[in-house]
Amino acid sequence: MSKKDASSDRRQFLKSSLIAGASIGGAMGAQPVFAQNMEGSFLEVDPWTKTQGSTFVNPPYGLPSKYEKNVVRLLPSPAPTFLTGSRTPLQSLHGIITPNGLVFERHHAGVPDINPDMHKLVIHGLVDRPMIFSMEDIVRFPSESRIYFLECSGNSAAELKKGSNQTVQQIHGLLSCCEWTGVRLSTILQECGIQAGAKWALAEGADGAAMTRSIPMNKLLSDALLVYAQNGEMLRPEQGYPLRLLLPGYEGNMSIKWLRRIKLGTEPWQTREETSAYTDLRADGKASQFTFTMEVKSIITQPSGMMKLKAKGFYEISGLAWSGNGKIRQVEVSTDGGKSWAEASLQEPVMDKSLVRFRFPWLWDGAPTTLMSRAVDSSGEVQPTMDAVIKAKSANAFYHNNAIQPWRVAANGEISNGR
Amino acid sequence: MSKKDASSDRRQFLKSSLIAGASIGGAMGAQPVFAQNMEGSFLEVDPWTKTQGSTFVNPPYGLPSKYEKNVVRLLPSPAPTFLTGSRTPLQSLHGIITPNGLVFERHHAGVPDINPDMHKLVIHGLVDRPMIFSMEDIVRFPSESRIYFLECSGNSAAELKKGSNQTVQQIHGLLSCCEWTGVRLSTILQECGIQAGAKWALAEGADGAAMTRSIPMNKLLSDALLVYAQNGEMLRPEQGYPLRLLLPGYEGNMSIKWLRRIKLGTEPWQTREETSAYTDLRADGKASQFTFTMEVKSIITQPSGMMKLKAKGFYEISGLAWSGNGKIRQVEVSTDGGKSWAEASLQEPVMDKSLVRFRFPWLWDGAPTTLMSRAVDSSGEVQPTMDAVIKAKSANAFYHNNAIQPWRVAANGEISNGR
Repeated sequence: MSKKDASSDRRQFLKSSLIAGASIGGAMGAQPVFAQNMEGSFLEVDPWTKTQGSTFVNPPYGLPSKYEKNVVRLLPSPAPTFLTGSRTPLQSLHGIITPNGLVFERHHAGVPDINPDMHKLVIHGLVDRPMIFSMEDIVRFPSESRIYFLECSGNSAAELKKGSNQTVQQIHGLLSCCEWTGVRLSTILQECGIQAGAKWALAEGADGAAMTRSIPMNKLLSDALLVYAQNGEMLRPEQGYPLRLLLPGYEGNMSIKWLRRIKLGTEPWQTREETSAYTDLRADGKASQFTFTMEVKSIITQPSGMMKLKAKGFYEISGLAWSGNGKIRQVEVSTDGGKSWAEASLQEPVMDKSLVRFRFPWLWDGAPTTLMSRAVDSSGEVQPTMDAVIKAKSANAFYHNNAIQPWRVAANGEISNGR
Repeated sequence: MSKKDASSDRRQFLKSSLIAGASIGGAMGAQPVFAQNMEGSFLEVDPWTKTQGSTFVNPPYGLPSKYEKNVVRLLPSPAPTFLTGSRTPLQSLHGIITPNGLVFERHHAGVPDINPDMHKLVIHGLVDRPMIFSMEDIVRFPSESRIYFLECSGNSAAELKKGSNQTVQQIHGLLSCCEWTGVRLSTILQECGIQAGAKWALAEGADGAAMTRSIPMNKLLSDALLVYAQNGEMLRPEQGYPLRLLLPGYEGNMSIKWLRRIKLGTEPWQTREETSAYTDLRADGKASQFTFTMEVKSIITQPSGMMKLKAKGFYEISGLAWSGNGKIRQVEVSTDGGKSWAEASLQEPVMDKSLVRFRFPWLWDGAPTTLMSRAVDSSGEVQPTMDAVIKAKSANAFYHNNAIQPWRVAANGEISNGR
């Protein structure tokens, strides 16, 4: 079923609800107007309409409404001595853009306080002309803006062991999506002259951990960006200000933040972060290295864990789908625990390695059930079940969990983690 | 010239610079590396790499780096008793998304402090079933997310009289672009049953001004949205929290914020905001009403007024283009004061009624000149010169200035308003 068909189906669905005499608005609690004497007299004038509003609410840099104070990044609890990360409240968000104040964090030695006028990027190793670039140099190169998701390879990891987490934020919150602006890394590398034999590059951050990863040259020469802006403004400190690498579709830790150095060489460097961490332990006790791509995945964000459906009736099921392999081709939704599946509509534009918002109309009959979503990407990969993930990766698996997320709906409307 | 050609031209341009022995990086001040004894030894280790970074920089809702403290909304100076607006720092932004903290404001009675649990929307007038909707009702309807620009009809108005403003923010800062999420207004209206004869609707805000405009039904039934989220999170208070109308491509004031009421009728209501304000005074002393669409327009944002080119050499000219008529088809740039024009590349995706980022490679020879951009939209409309705007609208014109913005480049590299 094409997107057009899904949308047309949705209209048909709404229409039939009306024809059946069950107006969705009415079914959802909207009140009919009984008295209509004069302009708006049936609507009591609210206190905020009777007074001059605030004139300096949020200038000169704005913040969300005080009524949204619970829509914040989730810190670990209890708070650790050193904060290593925070999670995005995806269950409270709409569309695909993550506002900068809510983008997830993952640090290896905290957030360095970098003066951009002092920050440098060195390119060296197998290049004809090793060079040092200031930020002023970098922003003068031809630039590019792209909307890409970023996901930590450890996102959803606790689920593999059947964790006790319940909300989308707790389970899948190491995921965000921004419009990134920067310079194609290929432009800068060509400026330095790439020597024959250069097959890998080492990227190093300027944080206290000097976070360091080996990256294949073919990725750096395809869509890798040297990024200095996110969602229009300069990078946030916790996102690598003033400069980060961005490797679209690859596990988040490789998009090195506070980037200070790139060295071209012939082989991977076997850094701490690709030997002791970010490897996949197999059943035979050996570990797979260099599993870069974040595979096809989707989650229903509304309704989701810890929410409650107040009554039976119409609900729009909505969620996010993404793949490091390319575009999302299709998302299917099951409202009967996986017995049957139907195609969701995808919000245009569907972009390469970006989050995609999917939507699906659902009439809840009040019976207990389980909701699931399953994505397919442009390479033909299908999002697997949890059993399939564990079978493929072994019971030792920790990173790269892209399993289908089931949400259990109880008869009283309460939604819980169906894992 | 297609976008592909422009991009291929850019690569050719960079390549020829290299062949000519003038590496762009070098020309731009990047330093070659002379000593390369060991890993990174040529790069002094910066103080922030030697220490554990901050672990609680910006949780749980983040803010920009302290080094970006000047990238803020511009308030009127001197500050008025009641703030009526603020402007977006477009010259400091990249890509097309405006972060929520920097979206321009225009208020008619300040920002009301609305409790979303108490907010209601009434639909009445020529409908079969007048209804009152709570926010809880509204968010349950089928939703949609779209990236649309929003521009005040008074944007760039001072230029018509040759104002003294110099920066993009001062001149054109009543312009922003966000991903908006909400419900198609047609869905809600169909829920209420649209009666024959309904040709116009009145939309009213819950602010102290009860900001009120008449809107043609054909617009409400095409792409109008009832918006509750911007860039992922709920609307900011100054953008209409918890609910605003969004009329894509129409002058900003019609996208009524804090929306409380929509009434369907047969004729416009002739409210204050469409008789005493937001009309276009003509040469004969009569005023044109209901000039809704923001016409095709573009501005170069980098480099722009009050910036300075440090030396001759390569610069990427970059800017924004948009049209209330539909998509941007083409942007041309002139680097010789309008004598010749060449096509800029447009960043994909190019979306309907969205800002579009354009880019153009330029080698400045150090001579004084004037930079300009000129957009063409999908309806074939071409952005006019200032003379043409004044001739078409009369010297009384104030709203809807979409004239070409010239930036004068002096021999010392200083850039000023070329109007």
